[in-house]
Amino acid sequence: MSDRTPPSVTRRRLLVRGCDVLRVPVEGECDVLSGRDIVVADGVIVDVRPTRAQRAEEPGTEVVDGRGLLALPGLVNAHTHSPMVLMRGAAEDVTVEGWFNDRVWPMESNLTAEDVRTGALLACAEMIRSGVTTFADHYFFPDRIAEAVAETGLRADIAPTYFSSGGASALEAGVAFAEAWHGGADGRVTVSLGPHAPYTVDDQDLRTLADHARRLGVRMHIHAAEHLEQTQSSLERRGITPVRVLYDTGVLDAGALIAHGCGIVERDLSLLAEYADRTAVACCPKVYLKHALSPLTPVRDLLGAGITVAVGTDGAAGHNTLDVWEALRLVALTQKQAVRDATWMTVSDTLRTAVRGGARALGLQDRIGALEPGMRADIVLTDLSGPHCRPLHDARAALVYSARASDVRTVVVDGRVLMRDGRLLTVDEPALLAEADARVARILDTSHGRAVQHYDP
Amino acid sequence: MSDRTPPSVTRRRLLVRGCDVLRVPVEGECDVLSGRDIVVADGVIVDVRPTRAQRAEEPGTEVVDGRGLLALPGLVNAHTHSPMVLMRGAAEDVTVEGWFNDRVWPMESNLTAEDVRTGALLACAEMIRSGVTTFADHYFFPDRIAEAVAETGLRADIAPTYFSSGGASALEAGVAFAEAWHGGADGRVTVSLGPHAPYTVDDQDLRTLADHARRLGVRMHIHAAEHLEQTQSSLERRGITPVRVLYDTGVLDAGALIAHGCGIVERDLSLLAEYADRTAVACCPKVYLKHALSPLTPVRDLLGAGITVAVGTDGAAGHNTLDVWEALRLVALTQKQAVRDATWMTVSDTLRTAVRGGARALGLQDRIGALEPGMRADIVLTDLSGPHCRPLHDARAALVYSARASDVRTVVVDGRVLMRDGRLLTVDEPALLAEADARVARILDTSHGRAVQHYDP
Repeated sequence: MSDRTPPSVTRRRLLVRGCDVLRVPVEGECDVLSGRDIVVADGVIVDVRPTRAQRAEEPGTEVVDGRGLLALPGLVNAHTHSPMVLMRGAAEDVTVEGWFNDRVWPMESNLTAEDVRTGALLACAEMIRSGVTTFADHYFFPDRIAEAVAETGLRADIAPTYFSSGGASALEAGVAFAEAWHGGADGRVTVSLGPHAPYTVDDQDLRTLADHARRLGVRMHIHAAEHLEQTQSSLERRGITPVRVLYDTGVLDAGALIAHGCGIVERDLSLLAEYADRTAVACCPKVYLKHALSPLTPVRDLLGAGITVAVGTDGAAGHNTLDVWEALRLVALTQKQAVRDATWMTVSDTLRTAVRGGARALGLQDRIGALEPGMRADIVLTDLSGPHCRPLHDARAALVYSARASDVRTVVVDGRVLMRDGRLLTVDEPALLAEADARVARILDTSHGRAVQHYDP
Repeated sequence: MSDRTPPSVTRRRLLVRGCDVLRVPVEGECDVLSGRDIVVADGVIVDVRPTRAQRAEEPGTEVVDGRGLLALPGLVNAHTHSPMVLMRGAAEDVTVEGWFNDRVWPMESNLTAEDVRTGALLACAEMIRSGVTTFADHYFFPDRIAEAVAETGLRADIAPTYFSSGGASALEAGVAFAEAWHGGADGRVTVSLGPHAPYTVDDQDLRTLADHARRLGVRMHIHAAEHLEQTQSSLERRGITPVRVLYDTGVLDAGALIAHGCGIVERDLSLLAEYADRTAVACCPKVYLKHALSPLTPVRDLLGAGITVAVGTDGAAGHNTLDVWEALRLVALTQKQAVRDATWMTVSDTLRTAVRGGARALGLQDRIGALEPGMRADIVLTDLSGPHCRPLHDARAALVYSARASDVRTVVVDGRVLMRDGRLLTVDEPALLAEADARVARILDTSHGRAVQHYDP
């Protein structure tokens, strides 16, 4: 593990001074506390108190000036494939089948471990800039992603992507990754096991992986019921829905983060509800619209059944960014339209879904998702003073409907400042961008005719 | 008219040096020309030629360094109510009826001419920052908006909002505004007549305004068939669709920019097609989703019938921003989903809709919408070098799906630099923001129970 974290000193202290603080309660309206100091010791928030500019700090305390800025809990990207930033914009205006079979899965067959490392670093840079402090990843060469997370200081849950076509050695490699990295990088890296989907992983493998997950105390992260046609296809082929497959094979019992779930149907809700304490659905609406899917994730039905919903971007080969602001805004907009009710998925509910929902979806609700004493210090300072946010009648509405990733000024993860006033501190951005550019031509060349898999759900 | 434009000199020359240039053809794929100089004289593009760094320029030429930046035609916001930025975020999570009757129309009854001037200036600041160089506005106190446009250097078509409840004096005031301001601010201001909607303006007034429009050589800008329920209501009340009302009253004959049109039905298409040379529909998808409307503007049907479609934001009380990047992205995403076809509304079609469509919707297609010799120099320089756009496989895809308003660095309108490298040159931004803040409490106070109108379409 490479990790640029400086050597620990006793009681590493950080003070974010004079900021406003977004409070995201478990239920009810979010609100904003004015003029607060956030006190952090050894990566943990120990106090959120009214600011006093002249207070003497303990010697060695790192101070971040938060005046004029709004602190919010770090955003959680609850489903992505971070290294796919390397394919951003390289698969436009195609069908879902064409996207997989003609573009993305052939390109992915070109990827080397070093490509993945570069892609993950680039993704981390983009996410830090966007105020994303935690992401749930699902990809190949997961150890290289974990190294990138360790190095850049982000927090991530990483699932090694597994197809049954990879065979026993691939399955075992994924399990070995979990054994090596779960709890790594000072606890910032957790691992989930990552069977790709019920249509690419057979039931026996799902059972085996669920058994490993229970043994290791980790969860599963899997694509399922991505759209209604997949559910219909599963019903036709085998008489049960994809969610029922997860139920029958013990995946839900192990705890599952389900990506997309646009094809979750009424009969699935009680199956998911049975494991509501450890099962969640990540909604990534931009890619559903772009792939012309309908219906979308049934968020109201899921929340009504007590199932956690979180916000994700999916990979940038479809979403084009890893921008959770964009994703949470689209959750609000598309869910209002989906149920023809402009009064639901309110600004408070949307913010709660993006932070508390994301934390819960990754099993991290005791560590992140709120700026409260006892929580890890994952803090995003945003500047809502630009003309596109003014007058600022309602900071919550500004966060959901006006703010942009570029309004993020300073980002703290686990008490460590990763970006200060727009400057990345843990990434050499120019070198990284040049490195990514140098890899592109080879990755885009699909003249060989290979692919990592064939899409036929 | 207040206008801070400096006194003209003979052949005012501007050179944008070394940029890439987005070409948006009338049909077919957009592409990017690398390393060009854009030569501007007296506000008109006279050449777009391969750059030569050492070329000697005419004395007095203003030079903008475009290296590393992509020049695109200025974005057109084809439907907004610019001063409504003052109500940004003050009407969230409500029904359409509640939005109008409980929030917006009561707040609007508080507005003074000076409020509108301040709101319009703030809107102009936001739009310049976002690369919007032209907007189609529809509001009260239009002369104050025109002054803001003259002062800030933007280009706008301004329609004075008219309700029949305002009576003859209001109608005549709108006509007088057109006579005073059409062609004003060195041609940057044009005027349309602005009956609010067929459900708030009676047929006789529509006829009278259409007659005035023809006499003055201006067009009409009107909300119509905003959603399907309005069309159904019109059919029930009077047996014809809102578009048929516009047809019968001569509004389409005068030339009409129709806002929204989500309720345009099949029988309307031939009526619109008859006036396709001077009729257009502005699509503002963010507000449709936020108001939980379905269906959306039938863009494929409209384009198929030869009718111009353009991209708008609507007012910021619903859209929360005046960000056309956000709007054009949502046009692409929602239209793909609406017709369940991921291969249409391509990145090229989307960009064409946003610039050429916008120009045509305002009757300005001979002046703006392309960076070509003979066109007015409305140029936006964007920086696609940030990590959220990298690697840059396809600049067109980056513009539609990755770029943000904050990637706009320099904005030129009519050959005049309005923003240079992120700094506004025609707006005192801190003073303006303070001025807007000072007006807010009074505007938000609706305890008086008044409203500019009652919504019951």
